[in-house]
Amino acid sequence: MSWEDKVRRVVPYVPGEQPKQKGIIKLNTNENPYPPAPEVERLLREIDYSALRLYPDTDAGELTKELAAYYGLKPSQIFVGVGSDDVLSMAFLTFFNSEKPILFPDITYSFYDVWADLYRIPYKLCPLDDSFRINPDDYKQENGGIIFPNPNAPTGVLESVDMVEEILRANPEVVVIVDEAYIDFGGESCLPLLSRYENLLVVQTFSKSRSMAGMRIGFAMGNEKLIQCLNDVKFSFNSYTMNLPAQVLGAQAVRDKVYFAETCGKIIKTREWVKEELKKLGFDFPDSKANFIFAAHRHMSGGVIFEALRERGIYVRHWDKPRIGNYLRITIGTKEEMERLLEALAEIVAE
Amino acid sequence: MSWEDKVRRVVPYVPGEQPKQKGIIKLNTNENPYPPAPEVERLLREIDYSALRLYPDTDAGELTKELAAYYGLKPSQIFVGVGSDDVLSMAFLTFFNSEKPILFPDITYSFYDVWADLYRIPYKLCPLDDSFRINPDDYKQENGGIIFPNPNAPTGVLESVDMVEEILRANPEVVVIVDEAYIDFGGESCLPLLSRYENLLVVQTFSKSRSMAGMRIGFAMGNEKLIQCLNDVKFSFNSYTMNLPAQVLGAQAVRDKVYFAETCGKIIKTREWVKEELKKLGFDFPDSKANFIFAAHRHMSGGVIFEALRERGIYVRHWDKPRIGNYLRITIGTKEEMERLLEALAEIVAE
Repeated sequence: MSWEDKVRRVVPYVPGEQPKQKGIIKLNTNENPYPPAPEVERLLREIDYSALRLYPDTDAGELTKELAAYYGLKPSQIFVGVGSDDVLSMAFLTFFNSEKPILFPDITYSFYDVWADLYRIPYKLCPLDDSFRINPDDYKQENGGIIFPNPNAPTGVLESVDMVEEILRANPEVVVIVDEAYIDFGGESCLPLLSRYENLLVVQTFSKSRSMAGMRIGFAMGNEKLIQCLNDVKFSFNSYTMNLPAQVLGAQAVRDKVYFAETCGKIIKTREWVKEELKKLGFDFPDSKANFIFAAHRHMSGGVIFEALRERGIYVRHWDKPRIGNYLRITIGTKEEMERLLEALAEIVAE
Repeated sequence: MSWEDKVRRVVPYVPGEQPKQKGIIKLNTNENPYPPAPEVERLLREIDYSALRLYPDTDAGELTKELAAYYGLKPSQIFVGVGSDDVLSMAFLTFFNSEKPILFPDITYSFYDVWADLYRIPYKLCPLDDSFRINPDDYKQENGGIIFPNPNAPTGVLESVDMVEEILRANPEVVVIVDEAYIDFGGESCLPLLSRYENLLVVQTFSKSRSMAGMRIGFAMGNEKLIQCLNDVKFSFNSYTMNLPAQVLGAQAVRDKVYFAETCGKIIKTREWVKEELKKLGFDFPDSKANFIFAAHRHMSGGVIFEALRERGIYVRHWDKPRIGNYLRITIGTKEEMERLLEALAEIVAE
């Protein structure tokens, strides 16, 4: 007998590499190539430093208020957390307490099965079709809850609000979580459905479209009852999670609407141009509405291209997994970064 | 049937009030009355703002390295989290997986039973004696793990390193967590025991002695195997929890050793003076080695004094609970704040 018998066994998630060398091109974790809004910088310099000695506002009131105003909701319909991973994990713990399996796609965000295992939630994978699309009929079987990203990750495929509603209509007895981490890059959010479906939870993040992966801010939007449940569970863990800089700078990022629209617009424009160029180089990919493209070459294996890019100091993401082993997930960087990527790919596929 | 049947039911923790009016004296959440080290302010103004677009270092490498250097440990012996609540909650989840009850004092930090309930960990309370001291023999019964704060909260009572070792010696088969949130105010840390007890986890925080409650930084120190287990569980939740400002400013706070020693020294000096004054006013209290005093008046009820102070804009903490309903937990503020507190108390007890 030893203390080691009482340790929880888990399979830790392996995040994308964070190489520290200078001069590399980092297109592997879907970060935004542009910095946060300029007003965020000004506020960073002005944070009341002496207030750091005090506990932060437990309710993250200013941040919640700005988000509510932006999305046309009440502050009591917003839950904030330390990145959308914190929010999603809390939502799993709060809403998926059933003996029936929760449902999510077979190709999806790699944390869903990890959280399900951690909290001992049974789950069942619903295979995407050959174009990586969700079949809504898969989500009409008995279940303990539903979650999927829209656009999906790592495919970038966007499903329609009508399809989301079809799934909601069939599932009034469980919470349906739509993970909209990438919605701001040209997708249509299902937020308007909130007023009609009290069991819908929409999760978004500051890490992609709002250029703030380094601040760790995620949020969920839903019916007030749903948000209250999340808050109750969260407050039973830790009363103070959002630190002062995250609250102050996050609120300012939401206020800077013009900058936000501009940077999202630039990324969309670059993405559409990269799509054309990748086609010319012999790549196939599902049409992406995210800040990345999930592409496979017609003749060369994903693993080989991944390594060849890496040797050239260009990092993309590759999973050695069934159905997607041939694909690369390529984050949309600046125009210049994508030019260098395309040059490298042209060299590699010509070999 | 409804989605509400699948919601996890919890009793949310109610943190100390965070009144927002100006001019009040806030002695209710054990915050440090002094701001963080001046160098922390300089770094805050210099944070690389454009780096906020990137995910932070998952390992919080710089912060971990500074803590390791300060405490004479290896970086692989340090685990950091979003406040010590995050660290402690993760430690409960990681180490307390047994059918046998975990043990902790009946009067202690109010989150322990909340986490135990949340994770469905059985627990048993070990009553403190009438002087609020731990009886080490209580911790020699069969158990699934042990946790206690030292100094204890909300009593402020410090137990000796010998007593901690006596408990460790009797419990090689479980993890023993010593929560040293308040150790820097004159207590002797049990850190030297780490080299001899691989099942000891020592948890500390930046929220009290390091004047950084607003940054949310806590940490655990232990054997490398123990820390690896914590990291595995943590990475299965959320790869990126410590945001960039927390990492950069936290590391700097650890470097500023002289300022740290000075502010702790000032608080200790103020505390010892307040003890004398409280005695003169008819208060009794266990001797405190924390940044608060847990005091009861000989003739006036704790609840009455609490309300009378509140009416005067002075916030302390009071729990309407068995054994401690007559006590007030008074945080040590600046000399000036404590003078105003003592004047108010003199008025109140004279009534």
